[in-house]
Amino acid sequence: MSSTVHVVGAGLIGTSIGLALTQAGTRVTLSDPSPTAAALAADLGAGTVDDPARPDVVVVAAPPDVTSGVVLSALQRWPNAIVTDVASVKSVVLAQLTSRATGAQLRRYVGSHPMAGRERSGAVAAQADLFKGRTWVICAHQTSDVGAAQRIGDLAASTGAAVVSMGAAEHDRAVAYVSHLPQIAASLVAARLRDLPEEAVALSGQGIRDVTRIAASDPLLWTQILSGNADTLARVLQEVAADLSAVAGALASIAAQDGNGARGVLARAISDGQLGHARIPGKHGAAPTAYATIVVLVPDTPGALGRLFQDVGDAGVNLEDLQLEHGVGAPLGIAELSVLPSAVDRLISQLAAKGWKVHE
Amino acid sequence: MSSTVHVVGAGLIGTSIGLALTQAGTRVTLSDPSPTAAALAADLGAGTVDDPARPDVVVVAAPPDVTSGVVLSALQRWPNAIVTDVASVKSVVLAQLTSRATGAQLRRYVGSHPMAGRERSGAVAAQADLFKGRTWVICAHQTSDVGAAQRIGDLAASTGAAVVSMGAAEHDRAVAYVSHLPQIAASLVAARLRDLPEEAVALSGQGIRDVTRIAASDPLLWTQILSGNADTLARVLQEVAADLSAVAGALASIAAQDGNGARGVLARAISDGQLGHARIPGKHGAAPTAYATIVVLVPDTPGALGRLFQDVGDAGVNLEDLQLEHGVGAPLGIAELSVLPSAVDRLISQLAAKGWKVHE
Repeated sequence: MSSTVHVVGAGLIGTSIGLALTQAGTRVTLSDPSPTAAALAADLGAGTVDDPARPDVVVVAAPPDVTSGVVLSALQRWPNAIVTDVASVKSVVLAQLTSRATGAQLRRYVGSHPMAGRERSGAVAAQADLFKGRTWVICAHQTSDVGAAQRIGDLAASTGAAVVSMGAAEHDRAVAYVSHLPQIAASLVAARLRDLPEEAVALSGQGIRDVTRIAASDPLLWTQILSGNADTLARVLQEVAADLSAVAGALASIAAQDGNGARGVLARAISDGQLGHARIPGKHGAAPTAYATIVVLVPDTPGALGRLFQDVGDAGVNLEDLQLEHGVGAPLGIAELSVLPSAVDRLISQLAAKGWKVHE
Repeated sequence: MSSTVHVVGAGLIGTSIGLALTQAGTRVTLSDPSPTAAALAADLGAGTVDDPARPDVVVVAAPPDVTSGVVLSALQRWPNAIVTDVASVKSVVLAQLTSRATGAQLRRYVGSHPMAGRERSGAVAAQADLFKGRTWVICAHQTSDVGAAQRIGDLAASTGAAVVSMGAAEHDRAVAYVSHLPQIAASLVAARLRDLPEEAVALSGQGIRDVTRIAASDPLLWTQILSGNADTLARVLQEVAADLSAVAGALASIAAQDGNGARGVLARAISDGQLGHARIPGKHGAAPTAYATIVVLVPDTPGALGRLFQDVGDAGVNLEDLQLEHGVGAPLGIAELSVLPSAVDRLISQLAAKGWKVHE
């Protein structure tokens, strides 16, 4: 690509896009309402601070609540440019643009959503390879030019992302279930720990750690994201609130010794969860593979994990997934290694031969 | 310990206890309603199948819904033995025993809960070191002998577990928040994936994977566990259902352009989650340490993780935690290494010197 891409917004995502495109050989210009932020992004190698006359593509990487306004300004300012945004909600941006932009402007707009992020924000946290291996959703709409969608897809692919196409409503409905609902569930479960006695919190194990990991996310950003998907998400949460009330009601019936059929409600909730969980794809977007798990005890000393993984590598076995667990009060880690079932016997015998405590 | 411990129930937990105690030098006898299960546990080295005349301690490792009956039988059958059970709910067992056992029998009963388990069940999945580094809660009650609680605590400690004491009601309230609520949240979020289109499920990232990992748990066992904590848990779930309805209501207000103060409800939900999440202790039960995170790109080939951890070990740095992430469609892993902040600069420079792509 010998074209010029202009990135509006020098935060984590905008700066990372600038870095990735620059490394891919694209000429990138940058702007930001904060001159300091733009200069920092340029210093990091994300492009040059400039107000270009004729960029081919403009990428709007602004906070969700101002995105549609910034996109509209870009469509007006550069009448030949293809414009995309990277907000993590898509319908609301498209609806606002549809009511304010001309038909000719709308044809040049294609929304998108690179599904990557970090717990840190700002240009200093940016990474040229933030999008490598991540999904980047391209949301063409009814009146967008085919060539525009193709151009934004090419841009996304040049950062190393895997490109997926879907409509804005379809995207927002999907992320309501796979991103926004999990965020709220994690936050509400974690919030209940606020006022719990210290001794009770101390019983926390790996289960609640996993369930609440994303509860550490930024409130301001998430308020904007959730607000931007308000209509769809409100209905999803009402469904789940009804599920939760049904489980609470079943438990209340059991507590009152009046639990006719109530245990069936509990079993069905857990069982439906099993079925839903089994649909989550494995890594690289492949169908979920039934990996075998082996458990290894690891002394909590520098280099112990290194020796373990060196020995796994020496056995010619690729780790498909890994969980580290720690109990309360003991200097010992428990590593659960997921590997292809065909590799289990070889791995166990080779690790045992090297002195590891291994369990299938 | 030169005493005899009799284990009733040769499933995952009972067999693991037998293995751990045998390795610690304790004489263990075993029984199970299934002669085959008991014989298998004995073959694995968990003890000898026997109906002992005078065991010092009896450990009841039966399904939660029959535990109190089996404990009562043990108290009657062995009038000098101290009896414990390992069910993961404690108040209901104690209440049933209080109404059926004599005062003298009750003094010899002390409930307990080893907080360890696996996704697999049965004697074949048992491990001698299942309890190493895990928490084992001892629930003495108002009329239990001090010596009895001490004896069960010693038994738990001899398996390598970290012993914690609390009352049955306090235990059940704690696990309602740190174990049972997270299980239900994970199951309900995962259940919503059941009927989602394939393309939507394909957008699943690391967030929903973490939130729903424990949704793979066994419905029958969990129905018993949840039922056994019905009263406490019903109230906890009603609190969370109210939180969820408040968030859904705020989103509905925003969708209806009537969101006066509604964004504050969202921000508070996420912010309260941050505060609760920050209370979860770090590993080894220590106060949560603000670990620094560095990100390393890892080729998806055998031995790559091994080389990485070898290099981390060579730098003299201990890994405090580890997350592996995989995007859809790319043969590349992203390892997030948590280390003490003081180790970050050294680790980054040493890994970079060895050719790793590293980000703070």
